[in-house]
Amino acid sequence: MFSLTVCDHIMIAHSFQGAEFGPAQRLHGATFAVEAEFRAPQLDGLNLLIDIGLAKTELRRILDGVDYRNLDEVPALAGQNTTTEFMARHIWGLLRDALRQGTMGAGGQAVTGLKVLLRESPLAWAAFDNEVSGGEIG
Amino acid sequence: MFSLTVCDHIMIAHSFQGAEFGPAQRLHGATFAVEAEFRAPQLDGLNLLIDIGLAKTELRRILDGVDYRNLDEVPALAGQNTTTEFMARHIWGLLRDALRQGTMGAGGQAVTGLKVLLRESPLAWAAFDNEVSGGEIG
Amino acid sequence: MFSLTVCDHIMIAHSFQGAEFGPAQRLHGATFAVEAEFRAPQLDGLNLLIDIGLAKTELRRILDGVDYRNLDEVPALAGQNTTTEFMARHIWGLLRDALRQGTMGAGGQAVTGLKVLLRESPLAWAAFDNEVSGGEIG
Amino acid sequence: MFSLTVCDHIMIAHSFQGAEFGPAQRLHGATFAVEAEFRAPQLDGLNLLIDIGLAKTELRRILDGVDYRNLDEVPALAGQNTTTEFMARHIWGLLRDALRQGTMGAGGQAVTGLKVLLRESPLAWAAFDNEVSGGEIG
Amino acid sequence: MFSLTVCDHIMIAHSFQGAEFGPAQRLHGATFAVEAEFRAPQLDGLNLLIDIGLAKTELRRILDGVDYRNLDEVPALAGQNTTTEFMARHIWGLLRDALRQGTMGAGGQAVTGLKVLLRESPLAWAAFDNEVSGGEIG
Amino acid sequence: MFSLTVCDHIMIAHSFQGAEFGPAQRLHGATFAVEAEFRAPQLDGLNLLIDIGLAKTELRRILDGVDYRNLDEVPALAGQNTTTEFMARHIWGLLRDALRQGTMGAGGQAVTGLKVLLRESPLAWAAFDNEVSGGEIG
Repeated sequence: MFSLTVCDHIMIAHSFQGAEFGPAQRLHGATFAVEAEFRAPQLDGLNLLIDIGLAKTELRRILDGVDYRNLDEVPALAGQNTTTEFMARHIWGLLRDALRQGTMGAGGQAVTGLKVLLRESPLAWAAFDNEVSGGEIG
Repeated sequence: MFSLTVCDHIMIAHSFQGAEFGPAQRLHGATFAVEAEFRAPQLDGLNLLIDIGLAKTELRRILDGVDYRNLDEVPALAGQNTTTEFMARHIWGLLRDALRQGTMGAGGQAVTGLKVLLRESPLAWAAFDNEVSGGEIG
Repeated sequence: MFSLTVCDHIMIAHSFQGAEFGPAQRLHGATFAVEAEFRAPQLDGLNLLIDIGLAKTELRRILDGVDYRNLDEVPALAGQNTTTEFMARHIWGLLRDALRQGTMGAGGQAVTGLKVLLRESPLAWAAFDNEVSGGEIG
Repeated sequence: MFSLTVCDHIMIAHSFQGAEFGPAQRLHGATFAVEAEFRAPQLDGLNLLIDIGLAKTELRRILDGVDYRNLDEVPALAGQNTTTEFMARHIWGLLRDALRQGTMGAGGQAVTGLKVLLRESPLAWAAFDNEVSGGEIG
Repeated sequence: MFSLTVCDHIMIAHSFQGAEFGPAQRLHGATFAVEAEFRAPQLDGLNLLIDIGLAKTELRRILDGVDYRNLDEVPALAGQNTTTEFMARHIWGLLRDALRQGTMGAGGQAVTGLKVLLRESPLAWAAFDNEVSGGEIG
Repeated sequence: MFSLTVCDHIMIAHSFQGAEFGPAQRLHGATFAVEAEFRAPQLDGLNLLIDIGLAKTELRRILDGVDYRNLDEVPALAGQNTTTEFMARHIWGLLRDALRQGTMGAGGQAVTGLKVLLRESPLAWAAFDNEVSGGEIG
């Protein structure tokens, strides 16, 4: 299996609901360094898994929806604790949709697996990883 | 599949038995940067895979058993070459036990996969990775 | 000159005032990975520049004043744009005070230079660096 | 499953054929930081997955075939766009052959999985990962 | 002293003249991860050292002159061994000129020191560092 | 000022004398990732600060004196607490001697400043930095 990973980052504010979160119940924030790994069993005729320029552009477009924002006020995330693992799943879903809709070209449509990993600090990160061709998830 | 990874590190001395080890047969040491990856197919009602505070505390408790020690003299490791791959497996086993015993909460008990990775230098690392619900291992 | 650096991190929310900030005028956040470098021309009788345990504890105590908070609402920062460079200077001042007050031991009092560096993303960071024995700054 | 990873790097020139590549059609270059991950279900009697010295030596020997070269002029790569994902597969194949031929010892012959990852920049990398015992691959 | 650092990278081909270079006399290449550190003794009224957006844009504009190129054929570098240390100095000079010309705003004009660091591999890097207000250099 | 940095690492055992060290009084160990920064005001006719091959070889030769050893038993370190800051100074001295003796060529003899930094963990490091032409130190 081949994989290609591109990186970007976002800087967001948010707060958590639930005593389990302790001080993280307060409004605080995070830099999420985002790694998007695209997987496919073979390369195209140019030896590309996916057009890296399109992949970066699409990842940036998706991240613009949450970058420099208070996630507590983003309608698409209403009522959710925007934990790192949840946000990995959220971004995964948007990238999966983009792959299916063809905005990342033929290479994107040939992608069979996708992993989105978010580093919240030098000592902690979370990811969501799944096959792309799978049906509805979560 | 979701994953959440937390990091810590230990500083240990040890020596190896076997001519294959060359100069590493001498008493020497290592900083092992430890990454513990917990995996689960879904999040809880708070959108958590596992309570990250409990995970860090439990990892620290386990590492305290070997941190700042000469592994050649730790009873639980007697007669073993404490290679990086072996130590990854050793710590994996202790974390797996902690997950099963519930010391990492309900989230810990819902964990289905666990990977422990130890970086011994900027240029080499080793890991042990397995499902947690599997029976007796090694 | 000797130096010793210890690291920690904070996760904060904030917003900026001024059209120059563009989308960063919105409430957003950051993980600041914090590096505190202590400098001294010589080591003590134990070959230590500073007690690393005390240094970590004091850095953590200072960071607790801003960690998991919305900096827009922290009284000590009122009316300030809490840019990365400003926050480096702010934390520098608190660490300098701690060095002078002796909370980091005799080693801390022998420190002659201090640098505080904050990484806001994998691609940008800021620092404040100055001699410690200097009089009033900023 | 156990894994052991060793790292090295190469510095190469190359150009790409195809309008999709934009400015990368020009002769340019890259530092590829190379990570070779060897996997096996168990360790040997010394608690080793593979002799790390042999693994490093063999990886270096293979990389010497492309290091400090213009890949456009390397006969074994003639007619290929030497993308990062393609080069990961190329090096994977040579390492797989070395494992089978026994140049990495009995540990190498017991390896069941192999991943080669090439970092082309701080923000992008590619990999090829497969079982080693599998027959002919692409 | 305050400092602010922004990062980018380039992917170039080149060769070296001189037997001392050994295999690096062959046409090869490198990814240079570029770090530009701007220094100033104080911040502006917004608590900024320099407009980070302008700094990134200007750094990118300068890097575009060498990115995805064979440095052996770049007229501005004719007759030079484009070592990492030389390229750090080259980019430093272009950034210094941009600071003086005001393309990085009033903050840029207040900058008093500049360091450009280029990482050529995980194990080697070079830099050029100087005051900006100094006269002609090299 | 130009600088060139090369990296290597050592894996050592040691123990500390003094109640201040707490659990680090026990025999333990560390991986020290070593960064040697050479500084000079100008480059030679080949645009080199120092022959990077010679610099790596000499650094390796010096590190071989302590690598894979128990520092408590190294005669040259007898009676010393081999803290990270002390070891940075120790390696600095040996590199300074090598520069003066010409084992790093004419470039090495033109070096005017030297910094040795040792990373003991992802969260702590120490360094010794001084001019090379200075007289007796420590």
